[in-house]
Amino acid sequence: MLARPHDVSEAVWQQALSATPGQLRQLIRDGSFKAPTSGLCPGYAQANLIVLPRQQAYDFLLFAQRNPKPCPLLEVTDAGSRLTSICADGADVARDFPSYRVYRHGQLVDEVPSVDHLWQDDFVSFIIGCSFSFESELVEAGIEMRHNTQGRNVSMYLTNVPCVPAGSMSGNMVMSMRPIPQHQVVRAVQISGMIPQVHGAPLHIGDPAAIGVADLARPDFGDAVDVREGEVPVFWACGVTPQAVVMASKPPLAITHAPGCMLVTDTLNSSLKVQ
Amino acid sequence: MLARPHDVSEAVWQQALSATPGQLRQLIRDGSFKAPTSGLCPGYAQANLIVLPRQQAYDFLLFAQRNPKPCPLLEVTDAGSRLTSICADGADVARDFPSYRVYRHGQLVDEVPSVDHLWQDDFVSFIIGCSFSFESELVEAGIEMRHNTQGRNVSMYLTNVPCVPAGSMSGNMVMSMRPIPQHQVVRAVQISGMIPQVHGAPLHIGDPAAIGVADLARPDFGDAVDVREGEVPVFWACGVTPQAVVMASKPPLAITHAPGCMLVTDTLNSSLKVQ
Repeated sequence: MLARPHDVSEAVWQQALSATPGQLRQLIRDGSFKAPTSGLCPGYAQANLIVLPRQQAYDFLLFAQRNPKPCPLLEVTDAGSRLTSICADGADVARDFPSYRVYRHGQLVDEVPSVDHLWQDDFVSFIIGCSFSFESELVEAGIEMRHNTQGRNVSMYLTNVPCVPAGSMSGNMVMSMRPIPQHQVVRAVQISGMIPQVHGAPLHIGDPAAIGVADLARPDFGDAVDVREGEVPVFWACGVTPQAVVMASKPPLAITHAPGCMLVTDTLNSSLKVQ
Repeated sequence: MLARPHDVSEAVWQQALSATPGQLRQLIRDGSFKAPTSGLCPGYAQANLIVLPRQQAYDFLLFAQRNPKPCPLLEVTDAGSRLTSICADGADVARDFPSYRVYRHGQLVDEVPSVDHLWQDDFVSFIIGCSFSFESELVEAGIEMRHNTQGRNVSMYLTNVPCVPAGSMSGNMVMSMRPIPQHQVVRAVQISGMIPQVHGAPLHIGDPAAIGVADLARPDFGDAVDVREGEVPVFWACGVTPQAVVMASKPPLAITHAPGCMLVTDTLNSSLKVQ
């Protein structure tokens, strides 16, 4: 059962629960909905964002090619275009995420509900698959998404697992974590593994220390969730990785989504399955 | 049974049949082996090539991102580097394919056994997965590869299926064709579909006219093979597509492999399976 995030009104929540992807993007665009999108529009792929000036775009495109687990690209827009044409019909990259982060020289300088006022003609937008996409399939298989039932954002951790560098871009991988009961771990691997475009199979199962995560109760992004007796922490590559790369690589300007606050695309998860 | 191509001596053929990927690349590099590589080093991924100056590399990288079926990227080298580091340990891009094609302004101007003399410091090499990679798995499943048993190059056709354009790059898709007996078509789809990095599942099964192929006996690249009673032509996306793109998009300079004459990588097919 999907719990309402505390910062969303009951009326807007009811609209969001029955919205199509286009309708949800409209609720986000007009400022009504400003919360994590996990659990909404089940069956449709959700997406991460990093926007870079054309000057840095080649290096990041190459970085994504070399690191497909954290950075599976659903769409890369033509320079200057704010509208998507592949993953969603005319989504406005500058307004259709519930919240954005602005980084200058690797420093987080702002978190804003729109980046309309910052848009530049040379911006290239990288729309990156998100593990929220396969959550509805895990739920259908009877696997609880603890962050949803607790009305929280998913837990995300900066690990010590290095990405493959590309030009000016390097950094460690961010992973999202979901506690999964022992007997459902194999099924969770199989179900998510069929959709590599939204991070696919997990990268790590079990001991958080093995990937440099010291304390599950203190995620680097998102909220902590309860991990109960008999449950295993399962870690998936996460599309917040570009933010760790930005912090490590310090490009002059980068815009990303705020972790958990995703673009809901018109792309069916089923269309992203292995082909 | 793999038949010896007519332009390879029996002595070299025996060496090639038992070579490791590194040994085969050495036979190619020293000029001993100059023939299609299909069937050699079973279990290892083979790869297509397009080399472009850095000026055109962004557009092609974006083109590959938008067209992953014909252009699954196994490795993109840093500008100027001739050596691979990801798909093979120090393969020389300029010498380790059995044959190269040189295109100027979209025109094929030369076919040469090495591009050592043409190398520029601003070259970026795109190493693209090849369907020869999954052939050994099809053979293991009892599916005959007709071009191998006939000692010919695989048949490749320029179709009327358009790729998604990116910047200055556009063109139609090239597909390789293998005749498959009716009762083995489903298995061929399943086996190849598990390795999207080497083109994955076929794009078309059956009537060649539906994809704009007028005459199976006249392939645009490679050799014709016999299609027998009870067999269905099955078409896979092909890494010769970049050559069709070069012909249509006319970049000042592009170097590719000669169709069928691939890089044999150190990458196991099994490591490219869906993850």
